[in-house]
Amino acid sequence: MILSELDHPIIQAPLAGGPSTPELTAAVGGAGGLGFLAAGYQTAPAMRAEIRQLRQLSSAPFGVNLLVPGPAAVADHRLTTYLERLQVEAHRYRVEVGNADFDDDEWGPKLTVLHRERVPVISFTFGCPPSEVIDSLHDTGAEVWVTVTDLAEAHAAAGAGADVLILQGIEAGGHRASFVDRDRVEGLGILVLLRLVAAEIDLPLVAAGGLADGPAIAAVLAAGARAAQLGTAFMRAPEAGTDPAHREALAEEEPTALTRAFTGRLARGIVNRFMLQHSDAAPIAYPQVNKATAPIRAAARERGDADGFNLWAGQAHMLAKELPAAEIVRGLSEDARAALEKISTRRAER
Amino acid sequence: MILSELDHPIIQAPLAGGPSTPELTAAVGGAGGLGFLAAGYQTAPAMRAEIRQLRQLSSAPFGVNLLVPGPAAVADHRLTTYLERLQVEAHRYRVEVGNADFDDDEWGPKLTVLHRERVPVISFTFGCPPSEVIDSLHDTGAEVWVTVTDLAEAHAAAGAGADVLILQGIEAGGHRASFVDRDRVEGLGILVLLRLVAAEIDLPLVAAGGLADGPAIAAVLAAGARAAQLGTAFMRAPEAGTDPAHREALAEEEPTALTRAFTGRLARGIVNRFMLQHSDAAPIAYPQVNKATAPIRAAARERGDADGFNLWAGQAHMLAKELPAAEIVRGLSEDARAALEKISTRRAER
Repeated sequence: MILSELDHPIIQAPLAGGPSTPELTAAVGGAGGLGFLAAGYQTAPAMRAEIRQLRQLSSAPFGVNLLVPGPAAVADHRLTTYLERLQVEAHRYRVEVGNADFDDDEWGPKLTVLHRERVPVISFTFGCPPSEVIDSLHDTGAEVWVTVTDLAEAHAAAGAGADVLILQGIEAGGHRASFVDRDRVEGLGILVLLRLVAAEIDLPLVAAGGLADGPAIAAVLAAGARAAQLGTAFMRAPEAGTDPAHREALAEEEPTALTRAFTGRLARGIVNRFMLQHSDAAPIAYPQVNKATAPIRAAARERGDADGFNLWAGQAHMLAKELPAAEIVRGLSEDARAALEKISTRRAER
Repeated sequence: MILSELDHPIIQAPLAGGPSTPELTAAVGGAGGLGFLAAGYQTAPAMRAEIRQLRQLSSAPFGVNLLVPGPAAVADHRLTTYLERLQVEAHRYRVEVGNADFDDDEWGPKLTVLHRERVPVISFTFGCPPSEVIDSLHDTGAEVWVTVTDLAEAHAAAGAGADVLILQGIEAGGHRASFVDRDRVEGLGILVLLRLVAAEIDLPLVAAGGLADGPAIAAVLAAGARAAQLGTAFMRAPEAGTDPAHREALAEEEPTALTRAFTGRLARGIVNRFMLQHSDAAPIAYPQVNKATAPIRAAARERGDADGFNLWAGQAHMLAKELPAAEIVRGLSEDARAALEKISTRRAER
């Protein structure tokens, strides 16, 4: 069990779409946390190249995160209307709207690579793989971690054979990990999710969502998590591939919101013009919308225009520090320990 | 500072509209927590009678919670349309839609009573009173606690002279305490709110929202709160005035959602028919909608029809126990202590 072997109960969340780099993963692992590579939106060969690059940089255990493909069918009418709407943005940034076809993010080829590369931890987001897939990964020696957002998903993942559950609270930045993206479902806060799952399921739990400093990590440990998974807290590290305009936005006290405007799947980012103008119209259509907006977002990034692309961020993004990733890991762990000692002392004095 | 004198870091949230009773407040205070009376929706004389009844039952310190009145003006058109819509519900329950006038919940008369009764703690919800009001309450010896939901409200309350901030996370049941009820503002999870406020404001903090068991209390203490405030966790106690159909709903694993359908102000309750049918149409118009739906809700309660009235509940309501309030307080405190000891031991072993 890798969770028991870490120096610090700190996991770096996979950050698909730019911020994730082998350097970041290596730095977190080298400092005694657990780093993740984000395989999402990559080809299988690119994923394999990153795994091999990481192994050149570090001998520490690490994880790779895969996005589980959903069904190909979406509500065509709403998607068509939304693609028409995106023409205005394409015109603004002088690009074409991207090809909005379904794809499965190279699910099969990536699993094949992971079988061959014998990766220590494989985590899943957007669903739970069938138990046959989990069993076959176990056969390679891997631990299988599944990300869940409610109690039903937690039971499903436990039933399929997951070794560890990553609990993602509504506070988290980036995509909601829900198995199915549904309208009108309110997400649970991380503490609620942690207590509901801990009451019913006897698996090691990792808490994620809005955790950005030591006392917040202490909190989820006290509530029964074995470790905390942090994404936004690492996005200002020099090892992260975070876009410069995105880095600047993370440091500001701007609110975040959930939106499907950028990708067709619910995700949390800092509120900006694109989100305000398109959230109401955006359909549930992933990865179609993600591919349609890709050229627009790339052009906005190129211009340094933070109003034109997705500024994924958790609710506590303003607490993220601009420090080397190893220093972030060590500082968070020390601060968590200090918070626990402080409260133990105070309670002992009563 | 009353927070320093409590045997247990546990505050019973004021539960206006039924569940709050002097017996509940007395039981919590008698067990070494801090109980609150909910003055909302009462007349000033009724509030005074409850304070005096409580003092017959218990000599422990207690609090009284007041709702701060907002502006009288609302978007008339949406309110008028909503009142027409409510006719169907009034017909279903064979009552008339209530009088949807603005009122200030007897703000002035209640403050006068509180000045005379010399209440130990006075908390405010839906806003922060002017500093003159806070100063005058301080002159009676009272502590003034203000409920806040974001960093800007926390700064405003600190600036006005609040002694303690109650931080309400998005997980909380019942009304959001926001100073102004706005559309399209996403609430912060309790851990995020706690860390953002603790980083900037040096006042004692009480954490509220979805906290329903000992490990969750341990979590907010580790994250820097001086105490936890729990509402739903006390609603199944025999001392609470919770309606029977509401009690039953709390024990089920049903989801909650935020809605303005019942009161014209955002509040969290268990999802039911009334909420599903009217949430989209409900305007920001408090207390007008609250008064309009009052006869409908009363009739639904009378019938035991849990689909026709507001089932306020926090996200973790399924963890609430049916036990005497004093046992709830002691059990929560023991479980919180055990959770902190467990994690301290585990971290020491690393």
